[in-house]
Amino acid sequence: MSRAPVLLFACQGVDQAAWLAALHRADPGLDIRVWPSVGDPAEIDYALLWKQPPGLLDGMVGLKAIFSMGAGVDNVLLDASLPAHIPLVRMVDPSLVAGMVEFVVMQVLHYHRSMPAYRAQQEVLHWQMLPQSLASERRVGLLGLGELGAASARALSGFGFDVLGWSRGPKTLPGVRCFQGADGLRDMLAQTDILVCLLPLTPDTRGILNRETLSHLPHGAYLINAARGAHLVEADLLPLLEEGRLAAATLDVFAVEPLPADHPFWTHPFITILPHAAAQTLPQTAAPIITANIARHRAGQGLAHVVDRGRGY
Amino acid sequence: MSRAPVLLFACQGVDQAAWLAALHRADPGLDIRVWPSVGDPAEIDYALLWKQPPGLLDGMVGLKAIFSMGAGVDNVLLDASLPAHIPLVRMVDPSLVAGMVEFVVMQVLHYHRSMPAYRAQQEVLHWQMLPQSLASERRVGLLGLGELGAASARALSGFGFDVLGWSRGPKTLPGVRCFQGADGLRDMLAQTDILVCLLPLTPDTRGILNRETLSHLPHGAYLINAARGAHLVEADLLPLLEEGRLAAATLDVFAVEPLPADHPFWTHPFITILPHAAAQTLPQTAAPIITANIARHRAGQGLAHVVDRGRGY
Repeated sequence: MSRAPVLLFACQGVDQAAWLAALHRADPGLDIRVWPSVGDPAEIDYALLWKQPPGLLDGMVGLKAIFSMGAGVDNVLLDASLPAHIPLVRMVDPSLVAGMVEFVVMQVLHYHRSMPAYRAQQEVLHWQMLPQSLASERRVGLLGLGELGAASARALSGFGFDVLGWSRGPKTLPGVRCFQGADGLRDMLAQTDILVCLLPLTPDTRGILNRETLSHLPHGAYLINAARGAHLVEADLLPLLEEGRLAAATLDVFAVEPLPADHPFWTHPFITILPHAAAQTLPQTAAPIITANIARHRAGQGLAHVVDRGRGY
Repeated sequence: MSRAPVLLFACQGVDQAAWLAALHRADPGLDIRVWPSVGDPAEIDYALLWKQPPGLLDGMVGLKAIFSMGAGVDNVLLDASLPAHIPLVRMVDPSLVAGMVEFVVMQVLHYHRSMPAYRAQQEVLHWQMLPQSLASERRVGLLGLGELGAASARALSGFGFDVLGWSRGPKTLPGVRCFQGADGLRDMLAQTDILVCLLPLTPDTRGILNRETLSHLPHGAYLINAARGAHLVEADLLPLLEEGRLAAATLDVFAVEPLPADHPFWTHPFITILPHAAAQTLPQTAAPIITANIARHRAGQGLAHVVDRGRGY
């Protein structure tokens, strides 16, 4: 194709102006069509999607690749009409990884250093130093050892935490005690003080955080879910907090987003709510990654970070 | 001396049982006298002090070295009768440094990632993603580039923050924009989004955080004081928060500790109070460092980490 490549932009809930400016800056030659102003659907070469309306790609017979704006592609794949033979590319953006590492380290330190207890003390004007543990005495278990999990493990190891990690298949990471499969999951949970979920959402991982699995944690463990709301069986969380199996939870993601106003999580004293903000894809760093991948494809080289549709990530 | 070395233990506000056990484990040959059961004062070879009563060392004519349980020795030096010719050793404990790095990184990330705003949103059930900055877009200014400051700078650089550092004399640290002296202080403050105080308390640094200096910060900056309460002119803080010059402050230390119940800091919505808990000296790691230093001295080698009384650190 000698004409300018045509990119369809169909992303909801993002800063569209910032994205269009960043894409233009990254490749001024790109012909960007902003949904629903598609023009001739047959001219679309590439599509950048996020929470797109189903059926959007119908009639785009020249489509060569689909880009997801997020690292997880589950919401892009909700569209059953998404053509199965077109490569789907997930977002692998170093600044998205950096944002997630910041979030994970921040919340692990928050629990490690007893910040909820100190905040409660401040509320009642109570001055008391609490016991402080060495990081090496604190076991942090990561669910998922992909880009986000591996980078988080590296950062946590740097602080001296005892880092454990679980993945579907076998993995080896320096400084991480690695577990796999259903037995490995129970083994890891039984020795995890702070549990961090960074899994992709697939049929295998849906509901993986439930009463049965979380009951393997030591009493008073902490949960941080920065992956997807559907990883957690939400109805199971409140009794686990009530019984003290879990001391507190930080939730960035929910079964229904935005979290409905009458949801009991909002006002629970031991739950910290984030509005799916653990790690945003920032246009200034992500746009050049998308345009570089397009350039690679146009030069006849393979696309980077193509999703295995069977695995779902 | 062929008899067992005698160590006086006179530390208040610490877990005495844990310390005595750790010291005994580190050197079972040590004859430990717990104040006020000193025995013959002339037999005392070494003293480990923290918030000790003044005049405590009178009559200890055989004293060879004084150890401070904390990294800062200002409260040990409050005792005007402390013999000036006896070496005073400050605590340089890798786990104390690690604890401070944890605290600094945790609170810098807390502000960098808008956690106070997200907490306020949760209180009113409001779901809204806030703009996220790259760490490289956030300027963190460290006051003090000693063991604690340098280690904090290293950790913050690892996250990609734009790290600035100020010290009395000239210093060069990799990845840190270094400033010095009074002019350098103003220069650094003018470009600091998050200010962290890790200075020793000396006549030169007392009151260094005041209306004049802090007014050089950009509007909406954050303050973290993990050094000494007397670094901050407390009466200046509330108007700076009211005017928005400061967006929030985390204070671990205060002019009077425990912070009096009627102090306005306790209930201020933008002030986070910690009970001097940013970094504790942990007996399991610090006791072996003290006994190793005693062994070095007994072997005729020099003591490590002797304080320059003129500088105060």
